[in-house]
Amino acid sequence: MAAITILGGGGWGTALSGLLAEKGHTVTLWVRYSFTADLLRRERTNERHLPGVLLPSNLQITSSFAEMSSADYLLWATPSTALGEIARSLLESKYLTKNSVMVSCVKGLDHQRYRRMTEILEDVFPEISTAALSGPNHAEEVARSIPSATVIASREPEIAEHLQSILSTKTFRVYTSADVGGVEIGGALKNIFALGAGLCDGLGLGDNSKAAFVTRSLAELIRIGTALGGRRETFQGLSGVGDLVGTCFSRHSRNRGVGERLARGEPLDHITESMGTVAEGIPTTRSAIHLGERLSVETPIIREIHSILYGSTPPAEAMQRLLARDLRPEED
Amino acid sequence: MAAITILGGGGWGTALSGLLAEKGHTVTLWVRYSFTADLLRRERTNERHLPGVLLPSNLQITSSFAEMSSADYLLWATPSTALGEIARSLLESKYLTKNSVMVSCVKGLDHQRYRRMTEILEDVFPEISTAALSGPNHAEEVARSIPSATVIASREPEIAEHLQSILSTKTFRVYTSADVGGVEIGGALKNIFALGAGLCDGLGLGDNSKAAFVTRSLAELIRIGTALGGRRETFQGLSGVGDLVGTCFSRHSRNRGVGERLARGEPLDHITESMGTVAEGIPTTRSAIHLGERLSVETPIIREIHSILYGSTPPAEAMQRLLARDLRPEED
Repeated sequence: MAAITILGGGGWGTALSGLLAEKGHTVTLWVRYSFTADLLRRERTNERHLPGVLLPSNLQITSSFAEMSSADYLLWATPSTALGEIARSLLESKYLTKNSVMVSCVKGLDHQRYRRMTEILEDVFPEISTAALSGPNHAEEVARSIPSATVIASREPEIAEHLQSILSTKTFRVYTSADVGGVEIGGALKNIFALGAGLCDGLGLGDNSKAAFVTRSLAELIRIGTALGGRRETFQGLSGVGDLVGTCFSRHSRNRGVGERLARGEPLDHITESMGTVAEGIPTTRSAIHLGERLSVETPIIREIHSILYGSTPPAEAMQRLLARDLRPEED
Repeated sequence: MAAITILGGGGWGTALSGLLAEKGHTVTLWVRYSFTADLLRRERTNERHLPGVLLPSNLQITSSFAEMSSADYLLWATPSTALGEIARSLLESKYLTKNSVMVSCVKGLDHQRYRRMTEILEDVFPEISTAALSGPNHAEEVARSIPSATVIASREPEIAEHLQSILSTKTFRVYTSADVGGVEIGGALKNIFALGAGLCDGLGLGDNSKAAFVTRSLAELIRIGTALGGRRETFQGLSGVGDLVGTCFSRHSRNRGVGERLARGEPLDHITESMGTVAEGIPTTRSAIHLGERLSVETPIIREIHSILYGSTPPAEAMQRLLARDLRPEED
């Protein structure tokens, strides 16, 4: 059994904490604010982000870096926008005395410098080993032991294998990969296409349109993902097509929900204000546009979604344009 | 404009007939029985297979081979099990005097000799050019001009391009391919995985499980499909992952519906008797087992579905076995 700290008390951090504490590991859930830690300790449930799920009694909850000094593994489940800042605070606190393995469980990018989460962690802690966890894993289902599968990626095979055995349960199946970049890129970019799938739903397009949209999204994900150094096989796996499909067709997906509301005419600022959590697909769309330009990769779908989010293109017009592109051989 | 005959008055044949007649082609819908032809002519709708859709007034309906002698294109939309027999009858009738191009719009295999539909057509009519049409195309949506995309494949590029311009409308987008085998195999095999997706639904598994199931299904489809000579890129396109996703997540899919009912405990013979139409996934599962053995391809998903359909394995047990396979690197 291992000593594990999970950073971030959103739905995913809470679900992972419960899963691993129940498995018998020594688990601490770190949250940013002491009042949140107090609330979670008192109520033994995270009503805001994971309602109805009880936290196991052996799970420690804290907002103090001091209490994570002994962790073998640090699992990051903060918002992507907060990870760098929290990592730097942790470094400055000097509480982290051993070289804990750091695992990003975050699906997102740094939107200033387009760095992946493990790259940010390695920038801050150059000595540590890193890994990334990603796959079609709605927290609501993982927390309820509904069977799920995921991928743990590390450049160091023995780290990936250790984490596989630490994280796996009977209902949470963990597969290993060496393609850290591909796994992280798939998890970040699929949120953009989930917005688009929501647009399809909100516009009342049918199953045929949505299937075509998801197919072309996968092609675009593979195009940009391989240009960024990910492996094609990774994008065909759980953290690529699996997560894409799992998000585009799920009632749980926040990003899909944003697209649906946009298509129904709700303004973006109104939607984001009402949500209380971040829909990562929104800033990721902007970053992907920059990345596509830098890499000279064609990104027609991301462009149309960008023009809906940040321009003034009506969703119906943008989707119509996507579905009516010039006829050509399929693989062009 | 072209002279086109569509063979088969199921949902798909009816939808294609309407689409092409409305575009202004000279279209004849051939159905097997004269009383069906009489009924369709009288009612101008196909209540049994495509309820609520009006047939255009310029659409000819017949059950006589004599009336298709002048067709430039013959589009086959019969059940896969009837195609060979109807093709041989047509040959013997000697009514087909010109070398019409024959297009299979059928998703299925010959379950005796595991031949694809275009191979059967070429066996019967060795002189003709063939093509195959396949993609995520629920007839109910195509017939209602809900945007859809599909693939037309022919070994002869100019035939594919002609058919692309003949079949395309503003809402029915047709992409070309040279990989006839891959396009046909994708369309046939996805029905097996749709049964499995229905099993996931019927067992009340969540979005995570279903996403993992579809991901592993795609890997298995690519494995067996490439062993059969199809191109990997084809299975990543509309007629592969597109059709797979479109079927696994659609309310319209008959095969998905069969899986759902099986999971809820209904016996297979009861389900098939009540349906009135063929769920191609059932015989295709058996054929795929034979093909997998012949090609030495591992087909764990198809095996479990086979054991549910033809053995006595309870669906929950088979799916549990699939989801709990030994942990390993993802790409094994």
